Amino acid sequence: MSATHKWVYEFGTQVTDGDAKMKNLLGGKGANLAEMASLGLPVPPGFTLTTEVCTTFYENERTYPETLAAQVETSLKNLETATDKIFGDANNPLLVSVRSGARASMPGMMDTVLNLGLNDVTVKGLGELSGNRGFALDSYRRFIQMYANVVLGMSHHAFEDILENHKDDNGYYTDTEMSADNWAALIEDYKKAVRAELGKDFPQDPKEQLWGALSAVFESWMNDRAIVYRRLQDIPASWGTAVNVQAMVFGNMGDTSATGVAFTRDPSTGENTYYGEFLINAQGEDVVAGIRTPQTLTIKARKEMGETDPSMEEAMPVVYQELADVFAKLETHYCDMQDIEFTVERGKLWMLQTRSGKRTAKAALKIAIDMASEGMITEDEALLRVEPNSLDQLLHPTLDENAPRDLIATGLPASPGAAIGEVVFSSDEAEALAKAGHKVILVRTETSPEDIHGMHAAEAIVTARGGMTSHAAVVARGMGTPCVSGAGSVRINYETNSFSVAGRIINKGDIITVDGASGQVFFGSVDMVQPEMSGDFSTLMAWADRARTLGIRTNAETPTDVETAKGFGAEGIGLCRTEHMFFEAERLAYFRQMILAEGLEDRVVALDKILPIQREDFAAIFRIMGDLPCTIRLLDPPLHEFLPQTETDVKAVSEATGVSVRELMERAKELHETNPMLGHRGCRLGISYPEIYAMQARAIFEAQALVAKETGVEPVAEVMIPLVSSAKELEILKEVIETVAKDVQGEQGREVVYTIGTMIELPRAALRAADIAQHAEFFSFGTNDLTQTTFGLSRDDAGKFLPDYVSQGIMEKDPFVTIDQEGVGDLVKIAVERGRQTRPDIKLGVCGEHGGDPASIEFFHNVGLNYVSCSPYRVPIARLAAGQSAIRAANRT
Amino acid sequence: MSATHKWVYEFGTQVTDGDAKMKNLLGGKGANLAEMASLGLPVPPGFTLTTEVCTTFYENERTYPETLAAQVETSLKNLETATDKIFGDANNPLLVSVRSGARASMPGMMDTVLNLGLNDVTVKGLGELSGNRGFALDSYRRFIQMYANVVLGMSHHAFEDILENHKDDNGYYTDTEMSADNWAALIEDYKKAVRAELGKDFPQDPKEQLWGALSAVFESWMNDRAIVYRRLQDIPASWGTAVNVQAMVFGNMGDTSATGVAFTRDPSTGENTYYGEFLINAQGEDVVAGIRTPQTLTIKARKEMGETDPSMEEAMPVVYQELADVFAKLETHYCDMQDIEFTVERGKLWMLQTRSGKRTAKAALKIAIDMASEGMITEDEALLRVEPNSLDQLLHPTLDENAPRDLIATGLPASPGAAIGEVVFSSDEAEALAKAGHKVILVRTETSPEDIHGMHAAEAIVTARGGMTSHAAVVARGMGTPCVSGAGSVRINYETNSFSVAGRIINKGDIITVDGASGQVFFGSVDMVQPEMSGDFSTLMAWADRARTLGIRTNAETPTDVETAKGFGAEGIGLCRTEHMFFEAERLAYFRQMILAEGLEDRVVALDKILPIQREDFAAIFRIMGDLPCTIRLLDPPLHEFLPQTETDVKAVSEATGVSVRELMERAKELHETNPMLGHRGCRLGISYPEIYAMQARAIFEAQALVAKETGVEPVAEVMIPLVSSAKELEILKEVIETVAKDVQGEQGREVVYTIGTMIELPRAALRAADIAQHAEFFSFGTNDLTQTTFGLSRDDAGKFLPDYVSQGIMEKDPFVTIDQEGVGDLVKIAVERGRQTRPDIKLGVCGEHGGDPASIEFFHNVGLNYVSCSPYRVPIARLAAGQSAIRAANRT
Repeated sequence: MSATHKWVYEFGTQVTDGDAKMKNLLGGKGANLAEMASLGLPVPPGFTLTTEVCTTFYENERTYPETLAAQVETSLKNLETATDKIFGDANNPLLVSVRSGARASMPGMMDTVLNLGLNDVTVKGLGELSGNRGFALDSYRRFIQMYANVVLGMSHHAFEDILENHKDDNGYYTDTEMSADNWAALIEDYKKAVRAELGKDFPQDPKEQLWGALSAVFESWMNDRAIVYRRLQDIPASWGTAVNVQAMVFGNMGDTSATGVAFTRDPSTGENTYYGEFLINAQGEDVVAGIRTPQTLTIKARKEMGETDPSMEEAMPVVYQELADVFAKLETHYCDMQDIEFTVERGKLWMLQTRSGKRTAKAALKIAIDMASEGMITEDEALLRVEPNSLDQLLHPTLDENAPRDLIATGLPASPGAAIGEVVFSSDEAEALAKAGHKVILVRTETSPEDIHGMHAAEAIVTARGGMTSHAAVVARGMGTPCVSGAGSVRINYETNSFSVAGRIINKGDIITVDGASGQVFFGSVDMVQPEMSGDFSTLMAWADRARTLGIRTNAETPTDVETAKGFGAEGIGLCRTEHMFFEAERLAYFRQMILAEGLEDRVVALDKILPIQREDFAAIFRIMGDLPCTIRLLDPPLHEFLPQTETDVKAVSEATGVSVRELMERAKELHETNPMLGHRGCRLGISYPEIYAMQARAIFEAQALVAKETGVEPVAEVMIPLVSSAKELEILKEVIETVAKDVQGEQGREVVYTIGTMIELPRAALRAADIAQHAEFFSFGTNDLTQTTFGLSRDDAGKFLPDYVSQGIMEKDPFVTIDQEGVGDLVKIAVERGRQTRPDIKLGVCGEHGGDPASIEFFHNVGLNYVSCSPYRVPIARLAAGQSAIRAANRT
Repeated sequence: MSATHKWVYEFGTQVTDGDAKMKNLLGGKGANLAEMASLGLPVPPGFTLTTEVCTTFYENERTYPETLAAQVETSLKNLETATDKIFGDANNPLLVSVRSGARASMPGMMDTVLNLGLNDVTVKGLGELSGNRGFALDSYRRFIQMYANVVLGMSHHAFEDILENHKDDNGYYTDTEMSADNWAALIEDYKKAVRAELGKDFPQDPKEQLWGALSAVFESWMNDRAIVYRRLQDIPASWGTAVNVQAMVFGNMGDTSATGVAFTRDPSTGENTYYGEFLINAQGEDVVAGIRTPQTLTIKARKEMGETDPSMEEAMPVVYQELADVFAKLETHYCDMQDIEFTVERGKLWMLQTRSGKRTAKAALKIAIDMASEGMITEDEALLRVEPNSLDQLLHPTLDENAPRDLIATGLPASPGAAIGEVVFSSDEAEALAKAGHKVILVRTETSPEDIHGMHAAEAIVTARGGMTSHAAVVARGMGTPCVSGAGSVRINYETNSFSVAGRIINKGDIITVDGASGQVFFGSVDMVQPEMSGDFSTLMAWADRARTLGIRTNAETPTDVETAKGFGAEGIGLCRTEHMFFEAERLAYFRQMILAEGLEDRVVALDKILPIQREDFAAIFRIMGDLPCTIRLLDPPLHEFLPQTETDVKAVSEATGVSVRELMERAKELHETNPMLGHRGCRLGISYPEIYAMQARAIFEAQALVAKETGVEPVAEVMIPLVSSAKELEILKEVIETVAKDVQGEQGREVVYTIGTMIELPRAALRAADIAQHAEFFSFGTNDLTQTTFGLSRDDAGKFLPDYVSQGIMEKDPFVTIDQEGVGDLVKIAVERGRQTRPDIKLGVCGEHGGDPASIEFFHNVGLNYVSCSPYRVPIARLAAGQSAIRAANRT
């Protein structure tokens, strides 16, 4: 980059040279501060070091671009001019905050330093300027504490302990009791502590302080919790963060000062009412940290919550009105619900941040639909506003109103949804138990960024302290995890691993039910009911259906799943896994008999027993799906998967089948494979034992005849051959199926209508798609297996190193969750192109789990597939994602 | 195909409408019969049903093209005109042979019918025409026997038994004692046997006989032994066979008649002397069957063999001279050594077949070099004449002349080479034992096409009966398997599973040594010596080196293998598998300690012990290879491969390492993978445990320094990272290696020179070659793993179904032997193209086993790789194959 490259952008100074569109360069916070400054809103002036500084920093072994220092110097000068204060000046000192601000919001993940510029000299100037020496000294001690922690790497607790000692010595209970002299004495002890631990004095030079803070914030981009958060939120490390240096304003300058956070609409329900919290005489961090319980913004909210402390509307009516005007202005300007941070310094309102507000799925839905109705955004825009994955929250059960329940605690309805699980008290334990298959509820006094992994693992989160914008609440909403925060009656004893509430003791491992929508916690498990798919939800789905061109099918085989998927709008079955039908006990016995058969004759005897069962399986599906297409995959997994594993199992099978234990063990050994994933499975079984596929084809065709006779509707059967690697395999097996079809046609005296296609799930199949399409009327991409073979990566084994791979940036995302467009996707593209060359009207779909992943769906839309197929509960998500993909594609052209 | 499509071609009639170039259409035999007819050689006239008839036959459910019958009818008429005989005529009957003739010779694999046209009426005409009723009746009974067997599916033995009974009844010992009346009586019994078994009479209508025989021969294209032979010889089923219908000539019309086979040069040594065998008063099948021991062709040969029966040169001097003229004419015409079948009917010579003669590798080499010296062919042509795989025969040890030996039998030197193994007497057993890892020698009275699988499994073959052109001899030479045929003193008792020779009993399982070059069989094992690579061999290699553009490297890591490969002309090491270095006991202990290490520190302790060993491993290689490049692959296989498997093993390791048995078992369980092929291996280990790769890199760089100091020659190290699937992996590991290089550079005070590259062995690596090439100075295609992942096929597990796949024509060849050009090859092409896009001078090689397979080498030449790397013994094969590939590519342009 050239010597004149611009690394620093200013806002609220003489020239604001950024705007909201420059998010990638200035980060969300910086871009929006610039935008607000340009809108004439009261923004404390400052400047932004761009995300390019961050990426350059990491690309050059953590060193800054040469020209950065000079640009910071210039902007600092301009900031002094704008504020009419001087950085480090004894009488009129400029104080600044240094905050990270990435492209995507990462609340609490990176470091912040406030009150920077204070030292033994400037603190006196601040005392005189503010007329409040105690405030100035309190600010200084806060700065020392924060700076020592964030920049110098000292523990927070060391300082907290010193403060506690000072309070104890003076017999104080709260911080507010501390006098100016008390703070001054405390500061001396703070500085001693720094000297003792680091062997040098706390830095007094404001410039040194500034550069220390800048580096600490840039470094924090790579701290562990930021890395974990990015992984969970799919944020690439390569984006980098910007850093904002902004003139300080103080919400803690007495009772005419305050600080608060607000949403222009209710982020939980989406209601069009202001929503927020504020604290009088406090700094911003006090609200977010959840240490003091904040007051409501509006009278309406206060009444609803049953609070007695006055709302801001009552306590500061003038500033409240000013704030409400800002809300209206911002929402109209941004055309979206805003999440705002503000400070009132001695009656003057300052805007510290605005951004699109995080919201629950329910709120996102309502806000999008409402704003479209209000004419603020178009239908297409509304559709793009709802994150498809978030719908998951709306599709799951809620508590049955009529179910008996044992209420033990009530807190704030911090994140909606209901969940049942066993109580755990540490995030590590939550993660470990969840990995072992337990459903856990994380119960904490409060959460911190260090708890991210446990929060992610938990079914729900309960905290004893903190408001609706506390860490727990914000993160839980982002994750779509139910959360009750500030359940004040809950007293947790981490030592005994239990909590007490109203005289009852709840122990680790006890089952509780959490209802995040009502803020209630129940002992034991409470019955749930299915969600209703109406109102805003069905409006959104209708818009999505209108927009999308991709068909949406489902992967299902049980009547329950098929019904669910159809209810969610599935337009067909994209993958019916016939082998899943055999895990039920009686069937499994026949299936095992088939596997254990010595030769063709024995196998046919067993298959004859399976035939009527399988026929009825298919008939049940056909009855539900009517004239919608059903893709039925013939037997796929290695046979040994069905063999008994444990000794008891083996004995039972031996008794049931009459095959000796020894023979059973031998057969199992014979079927054992070194790499079953790459073994004798899929169509390879069909080639070796065509009688199995013949039986399944017969079951399909006979079921078709049966259901057509019963219902008068002709079922649409698509017979799918798995794991093909060459055209010849398909050709041979197609003949087997066609022969059966002819036979059934003769027996039933009616035409058997079906198509035959194949899974494309091996690299060779993708490469040979032109040949294979000669025999296939459809392709269904099995992207799970295609990912395994393309990467040479077993999904069963990758757990050991895949997390390392994601954290080291080798893979941006888990390729089993979101399709690897560059590699696996390249093969999909090749197959689409080559398949259509041979057969222009070939039907192309995907039935891997990627079919339910929005990012993957967008890729499938763009490469021109005809449909995606996903699990039943993901059908609405896929509908929305497909709609969004179509809109975005249209917008690009 | 159009109605006028030509299905039948004639030769030796008024018009000969084929020639030698039409092998694909007319088969080898048919094309050469036409060619010989055109050359004016005495060929019995006839016509050929093309290979298209065969392929059409199989494509249409075994039915013939509509217009075939009429074309056969016309050609039969023309044949009658040419021979002046009438098919089915009572007085002057035309008799024909019906023989298969595929594109590639498949000796004895398909069916043949002779003397066709004989029936109760025409046999009388033949008797009168030949003046020999006995001959005519003998011919008729032979025809009945052959036709009943080949066309009607009756067992040969039934007829043999009837013949034996007739001889016994008459007190005869040999067939020649049978009188005309005896034959007539036998024929009645033969016909009765047919009627009894089939319920209908032996067909008397010659046309019915003809169509029956044609169908039988076409059907025999798909008999089991033909399928097995094609698989072994890489002949596609889709080629089909032609069928030749030819006027009969008789070598069994008395003492002025004879039949024989000959080679224009010695097919065993390549000497430029006629070589062959003949039998007076016999039909052709008698020679091939090895039932009567034939006489030599020349006086010289008779003397050398110590025979007393006159040679053809002595017994039939005039015809012999005529034959010698034909030899000269044919060799000059075809510019190659010919394998000829001839018949003398009452003093008149008839040529029944000519084709390029099969020969040993030694003979192929000598003939090619000689013919080039004689100016008959060019150097390039000579190079193309030697089948690269056949060189294998010349590269392996022969018996040490000075070694003590215990000669037990002598036979004919039917196929050169020496082998040691345990005696087996059945082909099934040979196959089973070989599969179980035994080296076996198949000992049989004589072999038949049913023995193919056993012959293929055996190290060597010994037969008690049969000449140099017997089934055993011909097939063994084709396979490159040592063979001693006609060891007459050996008497085999299949019941006791032993053979006696000169009073000694040799039992199944006893070890014997076979020297196919001398025709000797020894008891016990005889010491071997390495072959000398001089003379014709080095001439050929020099020509190949001049022609080729592909470099040839070797896959080797032990000093012995590295020495061997260098001796064979390897120009570098393409793959040094560092993990192979750890299977030796002491090292394995350290290696296991490393694997079992609890954490980084423990692992480093173990690695420090491995470092000096590994350094010396590399130093040993560098010393041998001098300034030739050595590609060293860092640790590749899953760690659990090195863990102790058995209980005793575990205990031993526990004692050696101090790790408890329980811990060992746990660690093994922890390391266990469902699909190790797709698991935590290759560079994934390097990502998880960079200290392992760092140790290996250090060992390489330190060994370089050591050897450079010792020898003054700077070793050329190429460090190779395995199993890469993304550029990022390579980038990370490259940094690890570069850091070590810098360290060693500092420590040694000398520049460390090396390159870093990667294996391309996963589909994703091939697809992302453009990115990966940014960090790789070379690619080495690991086509073994690339084949596994592209097909989704585990080599360890494919054994269960791959043979079915080849036999059902799903795969033409085993893709682990010859690269699958269409699928795996497509990925190689993609990677070459994309890799060179980024880095035009990237070095590209292959180190999978395909690097030693001639067909694959040709592909690698054509896609433009820089080198192939193969096992030491395949280096000369690869040099020749690379030379041929270059010549063929040049010829194409």
